[in-house]
Amino acid sequence: MTAYDQLIAFQRETEALEQVAGRLGWDQETMMPEGATPQRAEEHAAMASVLHQRRIDPRIGEWLDKAEPGDEVARANLRHIRRRYERTAKVPARLASELARTTSLAHRVWAEARGKDDVAAFLPMLDKVLQLRREEAACLATGGDLYDALLDDYEPGGSGAEIAAMFDALRPRLVALRAAILDRPAPRALQGSYAEDGQLRISRDLALAFGYDLDKGRIDKAVHPFSSGSGLDVRITTRTNPQDPFNCFYSTIHEVGHAAYEQHIDAAYLLTPLGQGVSMGVHESQSRIYENQLGRSRAFTGWLFDRMVKEFGDFGIPDPDAFYATVNRVGNGYIRTEADEVQYNLHIMLRFDLERALIAGDLVVADLEAAWNDRFAADFGFAVDKPSNGVLQDVHWSEGLFGYFPTYSLGNVYSGCLHAALRRDLPDLDADLARGDTARATGWLAEHLQRHGGLYEPKEVITRAIGGAPSEAPLLDYLEAKFGAIYNL
Amino acid sequence: MTAYDQLIAFQRETEALEQVAGRLGWDQETMMPEGATPQRAEEHAAMASVLHQRRIDPRIGEWLDKAEPGDEVARANLRHIRRRYERTAKVPARLASELARTTSLAHRVWAEARGKDDVAAFLPMLDKVLQLRREEAACLATGGDLYDALLDDYEPGGSGAEIAAMFDALRPRLVALRAAILDRPAPRALQGSYAEDGQLRISRDLALAFGYDLDKGRIDKAVHPFSSGSGLDVRITTRTNPQDPFNCFYSTIHEVGHAAYEQHIDAAYLLTPLGQGVSMGVHESQSRIYENQLGRSRAFTGWLFDRMVKEFGDFGIPDPDAFYATVNRVGNGYIRTEADEVQYNLHIMLRFDLERALIAGDLVVADLEAAWNDRFAADFGFAVDKPSNGVLQDVHWSEGLFGYFPTYSLGNVYSGCLHAALRRDLPDLDADLARGDTARATGWLAEHLQRHGGLYEPKEVITRAIGGAPSEAPLLDYLEAKFGAIYNL
Repeated sequence: MTAYDQLIAFQRETEALEQVAGRLGWDQETMMPEGATPQRAEEHAAMASVLHQRRIDPRIGEWLDKAEPGDEVARANLRHIRRRYERTAKVPARLASELARTTSLAHRVWAEARGKDDVAAFLPMLDKVLQLRREEAACLATGGDLYDALLDDYEPGGSGAEIAAMFDALRPRLVALRAAILDRPAPRALQGSYAEDGQLRISRDLALAFGYDLDKGRIDKAVHPFSSGSGLDVRITTRTNPQDPFNCFYSTIHEVGHAAYEQHIDAAYLLTPLGQGVSMGVHESQSRIYENQLGRSRAFTGWLFDRMVKEFGDFGIPDPDAFYATVNRVGNGYIRTEADEVQYNLHIMLRFDLERALIAGDLVVADLEAAWNDRFAADFGFAVDKPSNGVLQDVHWSEGLFGYFPTYSLGNVYSGCLHAALRRDLPDLDADLARGDTARATGWLAEHLQRHGGLYEPKEVITRAIGGAPSEAPLLDYLEAKFGAIYNL
Repeated sequence: MTAYDQLIAFQRETEALEQVAGRLGWDQETMMPEGATPQRAEEHAAMASVLHQRRIDPRIGEWLDKAEPGDEVARANLRHIRRRYERTAKVPARLASELARTTSLAHRVWAEARGKDDVAAFLPMLDKVLQLRREEAACLATGGDLYDALLDDYEPGGSGAEIAAMFDALRPRLVALRAAILDRPAPRALQGSYAEDGQLRISRDLALAFGYDLDKGRIDKAVHPFSSGSGLDVRITTRTNPQDPFNCFYSTIHEVGHAAYEQHIDAAYLLTPLGQGVSMGVHESQSRIYENQLGRSRAFTGWLFDRMVKEFGDFGIPDPDAFYATVNRVGNGYIRTEADEVQYNLHIMLRFDLERALIAGDLVVADLEAAWNDRFAADFGFAVDKPSNGVLQDVHWSEGLFGYFPTYSLGNVYSGCLHAALRRDLPDLDADLARGDTARATGWLAEHLQRHGGLYEPKEVITRAIGGAPSEAPLLDYLEAKFGAIYNL
């Protein structure tokens, strides 16, 4: 065996173990009996320890030194493995294990603090997590920008400056669009109650309509919707709320977007560094285009309207046009995860600016709640009523995920670019979507983007798919056209 | 940290990883999407490789050399760890991995051969497995008996000679009892069809009635009933057959017996060598006493009769006495797993004698089917009609599990001993069982046996529980009394 072959064989085994560790997380959220929690913590820790030992295995360095670059696939594999190995080598073991311990603890403290709306109970833990992550960022940045070093974990090649420029481009037009919409009468909201079994039947039909392969996946209920796993075993979860079936339906489509990306990656990349989505931003571009540009389109919601009538009878929305407006209703709200397409990125900008200031040391944790509330009032025009609707609403910072939030907006921007290219190539797509048939749309995404997995760097795979450099314009144009029509702007 | 503490910390992590690997098996039988099979094989292999590396870690030898014996718990831990380490060290890595590969392949060949009733398709693979296991046995036995060396994996301290003596004691009285019973008219069999949801409701009630802790476990459907896991996460499966609800009910009770053993082990032993059932024979004694001596007793079946009437209405059995006879109906059959209490051990004896001859080299694989069929006709009085009802019926040999079968009968003998002791201590137990209340019975087993986990050697834990040496007599006395009454012998 060549050094490269040995390296890949070792890596395959590591990737297989990562799949096992990931499925342990899936199990915990879906199947695990409550009383197993303490034992599960030890199981997680044992898997993490095994994986850590493998990631710092000095043979990786030796194989990397000896490996011949080879073809495009080999070069991409080596790039991923080298990046990860060098990253791991930069962070002292002491710091890595303190971070693991502290974020696990902070997560519990955050959940309790959010339940009690008690910011003070969370801030000391948050500060500890923040300082450890800043310390880690300093190890990784080797003199460069701290925030960039953290962002790089989720979006290789990204930078805080580039993200800031993206938000500068998004902000004025989104703010203006939001103001214009909220000036208009709102479409009617969904009323009444929708039986869980009916929601789950439609959810399953939606998953199949968007091409989710149930022979290599499954759908379960969980508190939070998520997609888990790569390769031949990619599982999703959804949830139901009797008053809000859209939460179930669009969670399902969103997670199918993530899962379909994983399922469509070239089978030759199975259990190699190329065998998974290349970045959080690109991943989110898939979940978002499935959920929004396709799933919330006038054409597809026409099919969904019929499906809902078939399941629930007359549910108080008279026709597909009114249903389309209801699905895309824009309203005031505190919560990021419940935000509509127009306001979602405003929630992210707020978090990006605050977390960038925290990492830079320009904002201290003691001032975070006030900074959040001021910014929220300025951007949304009303005050945060309680911390669980404000600074305590998201899990990310408790887990040390600084640098993660902007990948959501990057995903939205990429989904706008991909959608424009898709519509350019498939001008008559709406006729398919109106029949609930997404095969050509999802096939286009699989062919132009998803199948490549980690072969190209994030921005490159988008550039190749759309045939040019990505920009914010397509997303903004799409939003203004869509909501302009719905709201008669 | 002392050498002992380091050893136990290392072992805890290994045990946690074993729980993860075991749960991967549970997932495969209950949740895994079909198309994930090839990836799962790599995940299993990766976990097996990690566990193998840990088991041969030379630090274990160093810690064992330095560790002070300490108290009873420490001595038992060291005994288990040493036994396993020495066993692993005796088998060359080449042989261990060839065995893993061959048995995995043989399992698939067996399943296909059984499906087609094609013995010839299986025999070459079986011979390969057999020769590898004989080779392994030679490594382990270091001059001693090959069969004993294999049996020791499942029943530490057991020997082929002792098992043979056990069967010599069982055989004449079981043969006579069987003949007397089959000379009598059979009780009526269950007729009709029983809805799956009703079977599963009763199955759940039975699990709870026998003290299964669903806060630390769960029940799912699978092709084969099994119990999986130790400590705080012990899951069971059951199955349903519309015509045969007893298959579901008694599979559930049987697996609850296994699971309850794991669930009742002293919490201080969690994720240590003492934190799991001590041997296959002792494990089977628990599943069997739950299923048979308690679950098929006249008192408990009275409760089950009422529960079935409540669920299914009049199902054609007039009263609890008739129901008791139906539950305990003895009939001719080919299949071990479907055998009644009287005939079960006759199926095991046949396998024990054949596999002992195979391992000794006194029987060759080419003659196995004829030997099976001759012996079956002699013991059961009618001919095997097809290989899937004969030599191909069990999975064990394809997986290399030579030496495993007799632990089933050992479990039955132990369950007889435990039942006699239990009845001696709780003379009025039937009043409880008639109410579906097993708490005192299962509490007795938890207190006298289950809580000890691996603290004592198999035969010692039975001896301590019953207050004397185990023998075949209590099981035989119980069977003759029970079936004598049902069949008016």
